[in-house]
Amino acid sequence: MAHRRLKFWGWGHEGDGPNEDAQRRLCERTARRFGRALTLAPAPRLEELALRPPRVKPPAALAPICATDTYDRAAHHWGKSFRDLVRGFRRHYPNPPDVVAYPRSEQEVTAVLEWCDRAKLAAIPYGGGSSVVGGVEAPPADSCSGAVSIDLRHLDRVLEVDSISRAARIQAGVYGPALEDQLRATNFTLRHFPQSFEFSSLGGWIATRSGGHFATLYTHIDDFVEALRVITPTGAIETRRLPGSGAGPSPDRMFIGSEGTLGIITEAWMRLQERPRYRAGASVAFDDFPAAMRALRQLSQAGLYPANCRVLDPGEALTAGAGDGSEAVMVLAFESGDHDPAAWMRRALECCADHKGRFAPDAGQTRTDSSAAREGAAGEWRRTFLNAPYLREVLVRMAIIAETFETAITWERFEQFHHELMSAARAAVARVCGHGGSITCRITHVYPDGPAPYYTVTVPGRAGSELEQWDEIKQAVSDTLIRLGGTITHHHAVGRDHRQWYERETPAGFRRALQAAKRAFDPNAILNPGVLFDPIR
Amino acid sequence: MAHRRLKFWGWGHEGDGPNEDAQRRLCERTARRFGRALTLAPAPRLEELALRPPRVKPPAALAPICATDTYDRAAHHWGKSFRDLVRGFRRHYPNPPDVVAYPRSEQEVTAVLEWCDRAKLAAIPYGGGSSVVGGVEAPPADSCSGAVSIDLRHLDRVLEVDSISRAARIQAGVYGPALEDQLRATNFTLRHFPQSFEFSSLGGWIATRSGGHFATLYTHIDDFVEALRVITPTGAIETRRLPGSGAGPSPDRMFIGSEGTLGIITEAWMRLQERPRYRAGASVAFDDFPAAMRALRQLSQAGLYPANCRVLDPGEALTAGAGDGSEAVMVLAFESGDHDPAAWMRRALECCADHKGRFAPDAGQTRTDSSAAREGAAGEWRRTFLNAPYLREVLVRMAIIAETFETAITWERFEQFHHELMSAARAAVARVCGHGGSITCRITHVYPDGPAPYYTVTVPGRAGSELEQWDEIKQAVSDTLIRLGGTITHHHAVGRDHRQWYERETPAGFRRALQAAKRAFDPNAILNPGVLFDPIR
Repeated sequence: MAHRRLKFWGWGHEGDGPNEDAQRRLCERTARRFGRALTLAPAPRLEELALRPPRVKPPAALAPICATDTYDRAAHHWGKSFRDLVRGFRRHYPNPPDVVAYPRSEQEVTAVLEWCDRAKLAAIPYGGGSSVVGGVEAPPADSCSGAVSIDLRHLDRVLEVDSISRAARIQAGVYGPALEDQLRATNFTLRHFPQSFEFSSLGGWIATRSGGHFATLYTHIDDFVEALRVITPTGAIETRRLPGSGAGPSPDRMFIGSEGTLGIITEAWMRLQERPRYRAGASVAFDDFPAAMRALRQLSQAGLYPANCRVLDPGEALTAGAGDGSEAVMVLAFESGDHDPAAWMRRALECCADHKGRFAPDAGQTRTDSSAAREGAAGEWRRTFLNAPYLREVLVRMAIIAETFETAITWERFEQFHHELMSAARAAVARVCGHGGSITCRITHVYPDGPAPYYTVTVPGRAGSELEQWDEIKQAVSDTLIRLGGTITHHHAVGRDHRQWYERETPAGFRRALQAAKRAFDPNAILNPGVLFDPIR
Repeated sequence: MAHRRLKFWGWGHEGDGPNEDAQRRLCERTARRFGRALTLAPAPRLEELALRPPRVKPPAALAPICATDTYDRAAHHWGKSFRDLVRGFRRHYPNPPDVVAYPRSEQEVTAVLEWCDRAKLAAIPYGGGSSVVGGVEAPPADSCSGAVSIDLRHLDRVLEVDSISRAARIQAGVYGPALEDQLRATNFTLRHFPQSFEFSSLGGWIATRSGGHFATLYTHIDDFVEALRVITPTGAIETRRLPGSGAGPSPDRMFIGSEGTLGIITEAWMRLQERPRYRAGASVAFDDFPAAMRALRQLSQAGLYPANCRVLDPGEALTAGAGDGSEAVMVLAFESGDHDPAAWMRRALECCADHKGRFAPDAGQTRTDSSAAREGAAGEWRRTFLNAPYLREVLVRMAIIAETFETAITWERFEQFHHELMSAARAAVARVCGHGGSITCRITHVYPDGPAPYYTVTVPGRAGSELEQWDEIKQAVSDTLIRLGGTITHHHAVGRDHRQWYERETPAGFRRALQAAKRAFDPNAILNPGVLFDPIR
């Protein structure tokens, strides 16, 4: 199993995801749901692709770690967004990286980067390739003489565990499961579970400010970074392991979220969590989404810090198997390696009851058996969550437009914001697709000053026009979101796809300063040019 | 009272601090403590100073908000470090700012900055002037043709309170007490109490990454910044109010800690706290400092997040009136506006008991009366804490070397670190002063991965040589601290005084990037040049 290849066009390994039979049933179910005939387009095969020949050849010394064959170049062409999948199904691979490098050490990362710098080739740091914002694709062919995708999958080891300070030094290319496997012998876990967990890397999480397991308090990977090692064309950067500091602007925070434009993260000291021994979970139903959101606000401002307090609107609850479609549901959980969180859960359920939340009489009881996390509404939610990328892939094969947009907004604007955003999305979907489809919302993370809502659009598209249709919906929704004061991304990053809204969200002066900082690290502007911002040369 | 002037040479308003009688008693007590005769040097008077005449004259349009008289220029010459006080007592004011500007609006800040940019004058943002690291003094006279201190004290209003999201838009020049006064009619508080609280400003806290009230979780002002407005020579920067975002490196984090080198912070949206209604406090005694530190580590990794859990070594405990000098003491407190923290406190005391911590039978009981915070060990600690700058001033008048250094270090290195640092400090003090003096340690803030220790040195100096003596002690201790992996500052900032160690702590490449970013905001390098780093021109 370990030697199966990753799909070059979709999620997971070749053969992963629902089997033929399950796909057919999903297709029939979806056809009934939307009242139209649907067929499954065949997945692309490698022999159908005729890629542009590589424009450059790696130097002899790097040849052993470089690949130029069709599989590697196709697999590194796109990320994993809806748009990327559609282009895969269209066999549209017009601008592949010329070379894919697989360095096995930091020295080799440096050597590859030196080659790119010398030859003025675009260097694209590549973790798991799960970007949904165009963060790993080559810059336009006419803007560079060659592009090298630098796949860090062989930097996959946990190098050191400090059980006193609860931190580990970890190579950046490791994927989620392999990272947790290596920590399994300890009492610790990184406990960072973005939806891409199976096929995304630590370095990718840090470079994109990934959102993880914890719905409150420690929402982004940012908070778990203790120190970084980053290779830039002008040298290595290593920050100190410090629990806290007030010495100037944080060096780590300049690289966290830099999306491969400033350097290649090779290692990080990450703060770990004690493995939870106590878990208390509850599923709370509310009459409607606004009631659930009022409870969520009260909870988020109470200083209780639940590990999970995700709110699903009635449509999301139905899809996730956590409700019957008539109620909004809050999935609430506390966990601890230290103490029974009963008092925390009791107060949280009181907050829910204040807003007429309904829960089972035994809801919220603390469990100490290790299977607790996998059971009940929370377990169901988790399975559905990690399974979603496999299912989406099948939807795309039916020409279903299936994508998400996510943001964050302060509480006092949320109600109006949500109303206008849903209206804009519904109007755009109806205009573009001629019918309503499904638009649902869940809250993935929450702060004392506001929630991070996550919207899912599922609507049958016109086969052959799905890209253009999605682009029009995305434009209308994102314009609204930015006009109303949200952020273009809470945890999906900016990449190439979000640039126009990122530029409306951030101060121009700040972006100029970032460009200037980039020039100090990367004077030839080889690192992921065009992602996040255009480099100045 | 409101119209009394601030001392130009010391802490607080003219006449504030211990009266003549109290000063004499303190002098006698200190003389007995160190077994030597001590006298109180007279405070400097304005008429004793003959400042260099201003090298520049403000343009007519700015004249009404500019001052060039001796009081204003002397009062803005130094910060409030030990070295600054000594130089004040020596009547040493060789390089005052030429002009002190007091803008009353953001427009006037912009106008002053435009003048400085046009005339190539150093522009020094000035909040409360409480810097202890040389952060507000003019650059060397030969490096600029003039220096303007821009005192923001008139930007002192809370402009807007959003009680739904619990945030307020606040002008950056407001001092701590005036800020809290303006929030008093609401149910909210910023609850940020650095030791300089009385005479330091919101903008100063943000620019220097000030450390505040909360000993865990929300230790730095950083965490409370929701959005910023900053005036730079190339234009205004305004970030969005967002509870969270993953859109590129955080713009706010570039300015937080920039110490006036990138722009002048004029406003911030700050996250507020609900006013605590429940408080549970306890004072826990331990056999020795190592035992208290073991309890602190367990507590800091338990996910309980006490508002206070400061550890005082036996010497500190004695000074703070929280112990008899034979025991280490942990000052522990939980507070909440939402719920009784009894379960939290119970578990925290269990952690202490695990390490033989001793507390009164009724310790940790929750109180709901508003006077609770002012009473007991915590109240005593607080009074002592805010009173310290007044006392230090008197010590300096006796030629007592009285200064602090603070850092942060991960747990697995702490024991060795503390041992070597105390040894280095003791050796330096003995070598430089010929006797031991007092060197004590407290932990001001704590993280799951390590503590932030704070060391206080009190030792009789040689009148006339205190500066040189302190410099030698500071050099020895800071060299040790940096060699052993600490940070040169957890919350005192870098300024001019910490530069040599900041440069050993941070990657050179990062500092070059900061310089490059500065050039984008401030091409003529007028903003606080020489603080944090040397600008490239």
